[in-house]
Amino acid sequence: MHHLLILTKHPDDYRARVEAGALPDLAIVAASDVADGLARGAHSDILLGDPTRVKEALPHLPRLVWTQLTWAGVEPMLDPALRRDYVLTNIRGVFGPLMSEYVFGYLLMLERKIVPRLESQRAGRWDATLPGTLQGKTLGLVGVGSIGAHLAATGKHFGMRVHGYTRSSRDCRDVDRYFHGDDKAAFARELDYLVAVLPNTDETAAIVDAAMLAALPPRAVVVNVGRGRTLDEATLVEALHAGRLAGAVLDVFPEEPLPESSPLWATPNTYITSHTSAPSFPADIVGVFVDNYRRFHAGQSLQYRVDFERGY
Amino acid sequence: MHHLLILTKHPDDYRARVEAGALPDLAIVAASDVADGLARGAHSDILLGDPTRVKEALPHLPRLVWTQLTWAGVEPMLDPALRRDYVLTNIRGVFGPLMSEYVFGYLLMLERKIVPRLESQRAGRWDATLPGTLQGKTLGLVGVGSIGAHLAATGKHFGMRVHGYTRSSRDCRDVDRYFHGDDKAAFARELDYLVAVLPNTDETAAIVDAAMLAALPPRAVVVNVGRGRTLDEATLVEALHAGRLAGAVLDVFPEEPLPESSPLWATPNTYITSHTSAPSFPADIVGVFVDNYRRFHAGQSLQYRVDFERGY
Repeated sequence: MHHLLILTKHPDDYRARVEAGALPDLAIVAASDVADGLARGAHSDILLGDPTRVKEALPHLPRLVWTQLTWAGVEPMLDPALRRDYVLTNIRGVFGPLMSEYVFGYLLMLERKIVPRLESQRAGRWDATLPGTLQGKTLGLVGVGSIGAHLAATGKHFGMRVHGYTRSSRDCRDVDRYFHGDDKAAFARELDYLVAVLPNTDETAAIVDAAMLAALPPRAVVVNVGRGRTLDEATLVEALHAGRLAGAVLDVFPEEPLPESSPLWATPNTYITSHTSAPSFPADIVGVFVDNYRRFHAGQSLQYRVDFERGY
Repeated sequence: MHHLLILTKHPDDYRARVEAGALPDLAIVAASDVADGLARGAHSDILLGDPTRVKEALPHLPRLVWTQLTWAGVEPMLDPALRRDYVLTNIRGVFGPLMSEYVFGYLLMLERKIVPRLESQRAGRWDATLPGTLQGKTLGLVGVGSIGAHLAATGKHFGMRVHGYTRSSRDCRDVDRYFHGDDKAAFARELDYLVAVLPNTDETAAIVDAAMLAALPPRAVVVNVGRGRTLDEATLVEALHAGRLAGAVLDVFPEEPLPESSPLWATPNTYITSHTSAPSFPADIVGVFVDNYRRFHAGQSLQYRVDFERGY
């Protein structure tokens, strides 16, 4: 018999969905409060939870062998003070489609001038302004992992050229051209949309830096759906105020919630959302867990295993 | 030698683009004013133009053998008082991708709650409301021609189920389920989004009628990108006011521009655009013309030939 401890904001929803999977040899304890969960489930060998709760519970689970996170982001688990004597899996695969909905929702909103058209409508005005189109435009992805690959496929569906800036990978069939290392300016120069979709590691900090931002053409829009620290926010704000960039769509920030004092709230042509580009819907998360538990139970290797050294 | 008369709003742009195609044996006259064009090009055997200008010029071109329209809509050419002794081709293929950008721009705008999020931003408020998703939702297409087929493919890309209501066709691989004739209520009952993409013919008038609208669930949003007359607008307005439908996105109307007195301007949850969902971009139109001229010159059959009897 295996023992699963669920630690999430909505434990009953998760428990019901895991139970619906009719998994063999599995007893379940579920809680939103970590102390409560540990009081009933300290003997658990499997943990399913969000990073904050998992981090708190880690030192108190002597039998732990596997932790399934409910997020893609694994930063809290990489704290060197924490144990690493267990298998850590995160969520991949399900966020690509959600990120595509977010990114292309905003790209199309901009091309189709949805907001100005709505203003025309409110004024009762027939607004025959022509729309733009994504066809023939160039999408630049900073980071081409599983999420970037899905964005690339969506870009292709809409007739875009797709460029990728990666450390070294070149294996996505929907990326037309790759750039690495010192190619930042060459990468940025041709873009209509730069989309940063990087995890937060030491290597990705401010990878979208002043050099990359300065090389973007004035028509370019910057989108960040990865992590706030991967982008030089101050330089971006300055460029938007100066009209050297056409706009920004930002879902992630170094500090979240974004402080009231942030200049971003009122930066021109900037759309702020609240780290909601790819939420962890319980149905998706439990789908990954159920599949992984079947592998675990059968002694097979798990999907989406995190490498503590690489940080993703 | 063939003689082409171009009659469009921007004749110089069209002429330059056709000339760039370096077509053999072709002399070109271009005008925006029909009388001016006829004064210089009455001997033309080929006409390229928008329907209004073409209709006016038709009686005065004794050598005409082929007319390429710059639009998809061919209604003005179907007037029984007009000659039909020439080959009429319209534009297809290029509007599917543009329509997809429009339709999915609005669908994603709604799912991702872009407008309310923008209001939160303006109030400086971190808005953690969860977005919806297109995944698993059902898209119902009224009309599955070349444009509908492209919308179906985009729906599939975003993980939707796709249903089609057609006269009899069932040949689109991206449509999961077909409905015809009296199946209107069965078709409408399961939809999250109903998208009408029909040409204006006697058979399509008010095909989206009170019966179809009444069978839609309250969560459904109605989108019309075909022709205004294909939808029972009064019933739609009533349903939106009563909250029996979640919203509407309308790009076409029986009378355009939409009269100032129309109740649609202020109908709740309704987005009005100005027949701009799939504009005729000269680059696209000339691409179709150039390809068709090569076929014409080689004695091959032309693409996108209109059947005067069927009306499309």
